[in-house]
Amino acid sequence: DGGAAFTVNTWERKEGGGGISCVLQDGHIFEKAGVNVSVVLGHLSVEAMQQMKSRKTLKDKDGKLPFCAMGVSSVIHPKNPHVPTVHFNYRYFEIEEADGTKQWWFGGGTDLTPTYLNNEDAVHFHKTLKEACDKHDPKLYPKYKKWCDDYFYIKHRGERRGIGGIFFDDLDSPSKEEVFQFVQSCAKAIVPCYIPIVKNHCHDPFTPEEKLWQQLRRGRYVEFNLVYDRGTKFGLATPGSRIESVLMSLPLTARWEYMHTPPENSREAEILEVLRNPKDWVH
Amino acid sequence: DGGAAFTVNTWERKEGGGGISCVLQDGHIFEKAGVNVSVVLGHLSVEAMQQMKSRKTLKDKDGKLPFCAMGVSSVIHPKNPHVPTVHFNYRYFEIEEADGTKQWWFGGGTDLTPTYLNNEDAVHFHKTLKEACDKHDPKLYPKYKKWCDDYFYIKHRGERRGIGGIFFDDLDSPSKEEVFQFVQSCAKAIVPCYIPIVKNHCHDPFTPEEKLWQQLRRGRYVEFNLVYDRGTKFGLATPGSRIESVLMSLPLTARWEYMHTPPENSREAEILEVLRNPKDWVH
Repeated sequence: DGGAAFTVNTWERKEGGGGISCVLQDGHIFEKAGVNVSVVLGHLSVEAMQQMKSRKTLKDKDGKLPFCAMGVSSVIHPKNPHVPTVHFNYRYFEIEEADGTKQWWFGGGTDLTPTYLNNEDAVHFHKTLKEACDKHDPKLYPKYKKWCDDYFYIKHRGERRGIGGIFFDDLDSPSKEEVFQFVQSCAKAIVPCYIPIVKNHCHDPFTPEEKLWQQLRRGRYVEFNLVYDRGTKFGLATPGSRIESVLMSLPLTARWEYMHTPPENSREAEILEVLRNPKDWVH
Repeated sequence: DGGAAFTVNTWERKEGGGGISCVLQDGHIFEKAGVNVSVVLGHLSVEAMQQMKSRKTLKDKDGKLPFCAMGVSSVIHPKNPHVPTVHFNYRYFEIEEADGTKQWWFGGGTDLTPTYLNNEDAVHFHKTLKEACDKHDPKLYPKYKKWCDDYFYIKHRGERRGIGGIFFDDLDSPSKEEVFQFVQSCAKAIVPCYIPIVKNHCHDPFTPEEKLWQQLRRGRYVEFNLVYDRGTKFGLATPGSRIESVLMSLPLTARWEYMHTPPENSREAEILEVLRNPKDWVH
């Protein structure tokens, strides 16, 4: 992106750990793009604990749990409404329970949020993720595709945030090495998933009306991230966490119109239909 | 506002009750202005219950509480960055506990969110509220002024949403009639609090940089409303609530820049200082 450079900030956390946040803002291709790598350790508050247990029940000691969390996450919001937003996050957790038991697990996923539906792109995105999963076990993609649709759900709107991808949490079997191999396959799939879509559409012409629809969809993105996203809630509830890094996933600009309803059979209605009723993109 | 008219929607709620929502969007003076009157009844979910008890502990029956809530709320986001955003909400609740006990209380408040600090306006706003409170009891204004500063706190930013006003909840003494009289005094103060400020500044010239700072502050407004506001959380958690009415408080447009920091001694730094360390505007 020739229009802007990444701002790179390394930071340390008083309670333990640190990270690197890289953000590009107001570029030619990307409105806002951020990558965050972090290693955080210390003691979890009860509040933060509640945000991280998906299926797990954890035995705390006086409301405290020593933990270590590390991960990479990224959100890319392009300027052109014909280029979708992408998000990925891969993370590893370790926790020590009151009785000294150590628990570890991996979590993460990659998902796509288009402003307009492009069938070919959706199939390419999901197919690339499926291939990464299938190398490990053909049962994984269908399971994690559904988990993604269920997770990125804006309940009060009855809509998903986007057209999904894969999402998983609490992954602790069959072995640490095998799960790590799987997570690496997912991570390697990110570039081939997304970059061809950017290249195909970053010079597509667009109208002010299309830009406006993108802004309204960005509003929904903000709603999901602030109201539901467990990663964001975990960040907001973890004492000493770096707020600018936690909230770098928010778009540069967003819009809320009262009772906006796209006309029937419009391209805006087309994507809404898919957000309300997720489709299977690959079989 | 000659540029746009209010859209008026009356609505009914399947579970009981209904309301009227009036929203003006993209006017000459106001970017977005909404007024919502509602009467809602039915059974509270445990989730919604948690959002409404401030000090109260409520004895539920199988996780359910018959309730009735009514109120008026409004948020006005002006176009001109020299005209502050105002919000008010006055409400009455009734709840029946498991043992048949009926509880009632009033809650509400009026608060101001300027983009730039104007001392004269801040004093006028607070003074008008203080006078309304003082008619009932001189202890009320200082108490509810502090409650307002404490309530509209964006914890993860270490900032208040605005320069406050008054806020109270769980008001159930000395008598229903006396509390109602007080709430009416507060409600009558809204127009004299705010309209003179609009008239004084709605034609002030402003720069693109000032508009940008307004958009960043609107982003913080969204953060407060989606992450902390109990009214919004109550709405999102109440089954069958009208989402467009719950979220009409969100601004038309907002912006998030990574690590935006205003220069020292700027007018942007001036308002931030007051949001971080609330001031007493009247004595």
